[in-house]
Amino acid sequence: MLRLSAPAPQRLEQAVALDVQVGGSEANVAAAMARLGLRTAFVSAFPAQHVWGDRAVRELAGHGVDCSRVLRPAGGRMGLYFLEYAEAPRPVRVTYDRRDSAFSQLQPEAVDWSIVRQARLVHLSGITPALGAGPMGVVRRALAEAAAAGVPVSFDVNYRSRLWTPAQARAFLAEALPALAYLFVGADDAATVFGLKGAPDDVLRGLRALAPRAAILLTLGEEGSAVLAGDTVHRPSRRYRVTVVDRVGAGDAFAAGFLWATLGGQPVGAALDAATALAALKCTVWGDVALVSRAELEELLATDSTEIRR
Amino acid sequence: MLRLSAPAPQRLEQAVALDVQVGGSEANVAAAMARLGLRTAFVSAFPAQHVWGDRAVRELAGHGVDCSRVLRPAGGRMGLYFLEYAEAPRPVRVTYDRRDSAFSQLQPEAVDWSIVRQARLVHLSGITPALGAGPMGVVRRALAEAAAAGVPVSFDVNYRSRLWTPAQARAFLAEALPALAYLFVGADDAATVFGLKGAPDDVLRGLRALAPRAAILLTLGEEGSAVLAGDTVHRPSRRYRVTVVDRVGAGDAFAAGFLWATLGGQPVGAALDAATALAALKCTVWGDVALVSRAELEELLATDSTEIRR
Amino acid sequence: MLRLSAPAPQRLEQAVALDVQVGGSEANVAAAMARLGLRTAFVSAFPAQHVWGDRAVRELAGHGVDCSRVLRPAGGRMGLYFLEYAEAPRPVRVTYDRRDSAFSQLQPEAVDWSIVRQARLVHLSGITPALGAGPMGVVRRALAEAAAAGVPVSFDVNYRSRLWTPAQARAFLAEALPALAYLFVGADDAATVFGLKGAPDDVLRGLRALAPRAAILLTLGEEGSAVLAGDTVHRPSRRYRVTVVDRVGAGDAFAAGFLWATLGGQPVGAALDAATALAALKCTVWGDVALVSRAELEELLATDSTEIRR
Amino acid sequence: MLRLSAPAPQRLEQAVALDVQVGGSEANVAAAMARLGLRTAFVSAFPAQHVWGDRAVRELAGHGVDCSRVLRPAGGRMGLYFLEYAEAPRPVRVTYDRRDSAFSQLQPEAVDWSIVRQARLVHLSGITPALGAGPMGVVRRALAEAAAAGVPVSFDVNYRSRLWTPAQARAFLAEALPALAYLFVGADDAATVFGLKGAPDDVLRGLRALAPRAAILLTLGEEGSAVLAGDTVHRPSRRYRVTVVDRVGAGDAFAAGFLWATLGGQPVGAALDAATALAALKCTVWGDVALVSRAELEELLATDSTEIRR
Amino acid sequence: MLRLSAPAPQRLEQAVALDVQVGGSEANVAAAMARLGLRTAFVSAFPAQHVWGDRAVRELAGHGVDCSRVLRPAGGRMGLYFLEYAEAPRPVRVTYDRRDSAFSQLQPEAVDWSIVRQARLVHLSGITPALGAGPMGVVRRALAEAAAAGVPVSFDVNYRSRLWTPAQARAFLAEALPALAYLFVGADDAATVFGLKGAPDDVLRGLRALAPRAAILLTLGEEGSAVLAGDTVHRPSRRYRVTVVDRVGAGDAFAAGFLWATLGGQPVGAALDAATALAALKCTVWGDVALVSRAELEELLATDSTEIRR
Amino acid sequence: MLRLSAPAPQRLEQAVALDVQVGGSEANVAAAMARLGLRTAFVSAFPAQHVWGDRAVRELAGHGVDCSRVLRPAGGRMGLYFLEYAEAPRPVRVTYDRRDSAFSQLQPEAVDWSIVRQARLVHLSGITPALGAGPMGVVRRALAEAAAAGVPVSFDVNYRSRLWTPAQARAFLAEALPALAYLFVGADDAATVFGLKGAPDDVLRGLRALAPRAAILLTLGEEGSAVLAGDTVHRPSRRYRVTVVDRVGAGDAFAAGFLWATLGGQPVGAALDAATALAALKCTVWGDVALVSRAELEELLATDSTEIRR
Repeated sequence: MLRLSAPAPQRLEQAVALDVQVGGSEANVAAAMARLGLRTAFVSAFPAQHVWGDRAVRELAGHGVDCSRVLRPAGGRMGLYFLEYAEAPRPVRVTYDRRDSAFSQLQPEAVDWSIVRQARLVHLSGITPALGAGPMGVVRRALAEAAAAGVPVSFDVNYRSRLWTPAQARAFLAEALPALAYLFVGADDAATVFGLKGAPDDVLRGLRALAPRAAILLTLGEEGSAVLAGDTVHRPSRRYRVTVVDRVGAGDAFAAGFLWATLGGQPVGAALDAATALAALKCTVWGDVALVSRAELEELLATDSTEIRR
Repeated sequence: MLRLSAPAPQRLEQAVALDVQVGGSEANVAAAMARLGLRTAFVSAFPAQHVWGDRAVRELAGHGVDCSRVLRPAGGRMGLYFLEYAEAPRPVRVTYDRRDSAFSQLQPEAVDWSIVRQARLVHLSGITPALGAGPMGVVRRALAEAAAAGVPVSFDVNYRSRLWTPAQARAFLAEALPALAYLFVGADDAATVFGLKGAPDDVLRGLRALAPRAAILLTLGEEGSAVLAGDTVHRPSRRYRVTVVDRVGAGDAFAAGFLWATLGGQPVGAALDAATALAALKCTVWGDVALVSRAELEELLATDSTEIRR
Repeated sequence: MLRLSAPAPQRLEQAVALDVQVGGSEANVAAAMARLGLRTAFVSAFPAQHVWGDRAVRELAGHGVDCSRVLRPAGGRMGLYFLEYAEAPRPVRVTYDRRDSAFSQLQPEAVDWSIVRQARLVHLSGITPALGAGPMGVVRRALAEAAAAGVPVSFDVNYRSRLWTPAQARAFLAEALPALAYLFVGADDAATVFGLKGAPDDVLRGLRALAPRAAILLTLGEEGSAVLAGDTVHRPSRRYRVTVVDRVGAGDAFAAGFLWATLGGQPVGAALDAATALAALKCTVWGDVALVSRAELEELLATDSTEIRR
Repeated sequence: MLRLSAPAPQRLEQAVALDVQVGGSEANVAAAMARLGLRTAFVSAFPAQHVWGDRAVRELAGHGVDCSRVLRPAGGRMGLYFLEYAEAPRPVRVTYDRRDSAFSQLQPEAVDWSIVRQARLVHLSGITPALGAGPMGVVRRALAEAAAAGVPVSFDVNYRSRLWTPAQARAFLAEALPALAYLFVGADDAATVFGLKGAPDDVLRGLRALAPRAAILLTLGEEGSAVLAGDTVHRPSRRYRVTVVDRVGAGDAFAAGFLWATLGGQPVGAALDAATALAALKCTVWGDVALVSRAELEELLATDSTEIRR
Repeated sequence: MLRLSAPAPQRLEQAVALDVQVGGSEANVAAAMARLGLRTAFVSAFPAQHVWGDRAVRELAGHGVDCSRVLRPAGGRMGLYFLEYAEAPRPVRVTYDRRDSAFSQLQPEAVDWSIVRQARLVHLSGITPALGAGPMGVVRRALAEAAAAGVPVSFDVNYRSRLWTPAQARAFLAEALPALAYLFVGADDAATVFGLKGAPDDVLRGLRALAPRAAILLTLGEEGSAVLAGDTVHRPSRRYRVTVVDRVGAGDAFAAGFLWATLGGQPVGAALDAATALAALKCTVWGDVALVSRAELEELLATDSTEIRR
Repeated sequence: MLRLSAPAPQRLEQAVALDVQVGGSEANVAAAMARLGLRTAFVSAFPAQHVWGDRAVRELAGHGVDCSRVLRPAGGRMGLYFLEYAEAPRPVRVTYDRRDSAFSQLQPEAVDWSIVRQARLVHLSGITPALGAGPMGVVRRALAEAAAAGVPVSFDVNYRSRLWTPAQARAFLAEALPALAYLFVGADDAATVFGLKGAPDDVLRGLRALAPRAAILLTLGEEGSAVLAGDTVHRPSRRYRVTVVDRVGAGDAFAAGFLWATLGGQPVGAALDAATALAALKCTVWGDVALVSRAELEELLATDSTEIRR
């Protein structure tokens, strides 16, 4: 998607110029992981011969994402979102404008699914099935292809109340969750979609019933996060004092950090720390994408110096 | 509409920020005329409780346009357009993104037509009927209301090839043109839609057959303009050396200048001069709207000094 | 007034561009109240045929303020102020430049006082009488007109030490305070002008002697505020954690929030909460005016969620 | 003065930020000459302990101007001007706001006139005596001091119609002109103030009667310039094709170029060429001051290559 | 290289911010050709673990250039250049700062020369051998590898007087020219390096003696260009009226346009037209790289309409 | 040096423009002290006829620094540094690019050492001897000249690990420290270079053995600072709550504040308070230099009001 944001601390109504960036949940995860050094391919659809479609490809390719599977159908719109950042107590506001986007019209038949069979992991977002019948079919097919190929699947719930109801989301997720290897969900979505509230351990165990095979990562806002792997709940070994510049995309960075460490063979506790650190670094960057290198992530994991690096 | 433009001379693909302005053909005419001192009301539809809808109302109201008839239906999009300015030989590019806009879904029944009966003039654009059945019905109804009330109608052809074919446009215009009091058309549209090419006088006489009662204003790009009023063709008494900053909206300023002078009782030649001067001034302003006061327009009409005004 | 500010965190001495906005205590109150949905008219004077006078009218009209009573005398200056924002421990600095402004030369005879008789409330600022004999006469006349028409008067002390001495202020306020329905005063001004220091309740009771009929609103900086209504002191039911972007105009927003709620029939405690919330939201906006809608204010009063609104 | 300008091509009414620069006729001449390598001192008055007064001193000192004679009286304003640049046919507009400026209140007694006795040249502007009795006294005293010390005086007419009438200007100039060594005047001012119109040679000879001892430099807008020295009229040996970025201050650069070359011992024709070249270079710079080094000026005088300098 | 430029029309001395872009002759050619759809690989050296080296790779990859052969040695600098744009008569100035750059220390042994054997064309710049013994060795080796593999070589003279003398350049070029398939040279360089002046045909025939097998492309500044292919001199079939935004990189775009058309099988005259058109489009873009798509280039070659594209 | 920084909160990799400022440790101290009213001369070397060298001189002169001793050798580079600001937990990063800078090639013979004999204090930085043999010779010579003239020397350790090893630094400092009157050192440098860790008092007493005659100022990051004068350790009487905008240069401001107060005759405790206050104010300014006036510093020392100054 194209992200158009009022330069903080301006309100959209007073902005005379909007910052232009490329974002979107899956793209953010892909870009972050490619930057950390993993081979990463992105499957999506942008309008053909369209300046913003071209730009999205260019930026993702610049981060090292393989965009050769991005479809470029004629005639669709580019999905947009308008972002108004805010300091407390004013809330950050996102106004989506993605009706009729090329991506919302994507059909499963249009995708070259061989990509799944070459992958070590497939990552999916819960926004996609909420966008329409086509994208829901794409997710279903991806799950089926991954199952057939024995490729583990990661899924981020990302519930969006403007797109579907909790009941609709719950119904779809009932299909998807049983097979997942990694499930990412925010505490607020756990409450809204599944009615699971309370202490993190209780929520995690409630989710375990739905996703019996997954490592389940629960994000808790300012309270950090927790992961249930097997029967064990892990908490991050370290919390960061973060001065937030832009928290949009922090959840995507969290997922990318966890998956990067996991694919690199790190144990679940270390992966949770990597997730926490990458999310913290993302919050210091203006834009959806965690503009972070592997060296920077590893440096933060290794030190707590706040000295100027000269 | 919301106009999102790359700051010149940037290309959209390299822009990190887009200038935000409000534009659109009828809005431009309304704003320009209100600024020149005429009481002006605007009929349109913007999405309800939407930052860009609110902003469009605020800006037009700031220019003095009465926006109390602007409908604010729930749920629609705000029409957008992306503008990439360019120096020769690179062409200026406009990418519209107005599918499903609130305006494109406007129905004639939603409008309070009493506004027509209070007006001295109704101005319409040929873009509107091309946007869909609803807007076409709005234009038809406006024509009918004006005819019933004996209010003269002004119409700017503004042919847009992405919205309809010349044959479709011609068919609709066959309904509208006979009753018009003022017809604005560019030479290129005269050729494309009506097949009328050649010397301005010939084109004007060709148009006379279609709009027998109208003063017909033909704009000729760098060649200026001509108006056929009754049997007489007038040309502007003066041409300006213009350093173009932004020519988007120049046609709307031309119409506004002509109508302002005409409603002020000036003869057709003087009105053509006012149209020419306002269009020239508009070309020096970044944005769709002719940010010009009555005093400035009259000053330009009265002098050719290029001295710094101190 | 025209507000020219160095973009934070720059110092004025290093600024290569100054942000241009419209501000001023009464204008801020008027704009905020119009945005919240009240019919609001503004009485002031801006120089005629002057770009900044025109702009001030345009912006206020855009917020919905009726500017038809704004006088436009020939020849005066537009009052300016230069603002240098700062992070602690450097203080924010305001350099006024309003000598000979059109407003400072306003005479009571020039105003059409029928506006008072149509109003449900008249709001005045203590800056006005400090600007000169003319503005002081305007305030005196407004008080008299309101008294004659039985319209309640709200007054914000806003003591400015560069304009008059505490003794001069005290002398004038001795005239104004007895009749007031609403009195706004900061704790520092209470100390400087009236010598009233100490616990909020004590200061309020000291002020009660001066303004026996008013609800007295005392603002306490980071300590919040208190209101004495009748014999009861109310404190806000909620405090906000505010990351301050710009606190200039927060007092005006506080007044606007209180008066909006009061005119809407809310009890004094709820009105104090509205005042507190609107002031908090104002502090997140760059510029003097609280760019806040009624929906946003009511949302903040109803929830304490800090989630991104999508 | 402080120059606040809308970034071209914006109109002031749409500007959200104003460029901040330091300017003013005499300051421009002083800065340009100091940059070309001459020892230059500036006599003026800026308000004490005032951010813009401090900044003006800092910038002029940065150009190499000795500001030790700039007075810093308490309490005055800093003169301002608002500049709106424009492309043809819209005129450039300057709105002065210098009422009550510290400079307009300068008295001749306040100046340390020993500076004149140390100078090789005194340069004065016709704006100064138009600002009030004090500044007029300053100019009179400067003329008298220069006469007493045998120091040649240069004077730029710079007629400003908002400050005084042609008759007032003519009366004052009748005092000043007879003793001048160098007189700069624009063709439009020659017409307005002295009623001298027509061919440059005729105007120059008309001015000769008023300034019998001066080299008289007549600027002709796009037609270039001419100088009458003794009985001979010189024209520049070269004209430049100039793409004008900002012509405010071009006249001051013209004067600076001529005086620099003259003080460097160049003959009048070469000095006119230097004046022409420096004015042309100034027109390519945004801001009042000719940001040009001696090497750059000499390079332009020596070559007509338009190649990129690498 | 990193290009740091004052935003036009500012001078470097007054710039408070410098535009950051990636440029350099060979990179510009590679990026332009990749954008036009050709598979393009770039051989260079950027410092390892260096923000600007990473960025250069990211941007070039975004344009579609294969950067897998770019070396990233430890410890070098990133070459920089400071650009000051200017309007006439002020010259554009480039200040290079590439001493000790990673590229200037590149050695031929470090390059994987298999890339040459996979190529349809090798393009080289005359700047490279002027940077030091290492880069000169790289060019020699590239010529030898291309000769061995039978791959045609294109060479752009790009003489830089700060890096070597005409005699040094001439000596090196005596080695390189005989084998070239395409030689690009500016008329000024032909004069400076080879002493060849006069009519384009004469210069071309003088160059023919040096490069007997090459198509020789002579660029003539505002006079366009000419190509000698075999015995025939071709001139472009069309000249463009160009409003120049930035002419840095125009020569690289010219080369890229010619080579793109040639590799696409077009005859020499059509290739010269493509070169001319791409150079003209480049001049409308701020930055070194011709941000032009194949569709845009072909559109310009096919039409001379200056209408707004909607 | 030229400081090129990404506008916060941007990363360098995403910056499209870099802020341009002048900085460097000794320049920062000199500028801050000149602004506080002391006569200050700067000894350095900038490349001749170079835009950044000229600009550095202009800015320093604007602050009141006497730059007549700054050498301008032909041919060198201007030292640069790239700054990426960051919010926690991302570290601020400085990338130096000063290889072959004019300053790094400065030789002691080139300096006019009479300046030392006219001074009341000589301030040196530990960066200088790390830049090469020439600069190390300059520092040695300055120490010898000061010793000969009986002028006290101040020295800031400023250890830079990219320039030399702790052992190299220690060896050089063994020469310099015994004679110092004032020694500034950060706690981290004390640990790295001298192996002195632990409680501030212990570190200070460890340093006393190395610098037996100096007042030793130890900075402790967020823990403030301490000074050992004679046998007494002083701590600041006040700590400030600082919202950090830019902490680069805070150490230089600390030194400037201490030396300014000391040269003004204040006792060591008061001087430490001045150092603390100036460092705090510096942290609120974007740029290396403490843009603070004497009045502002004294105001902060005298009050803790956070009110808006109107």
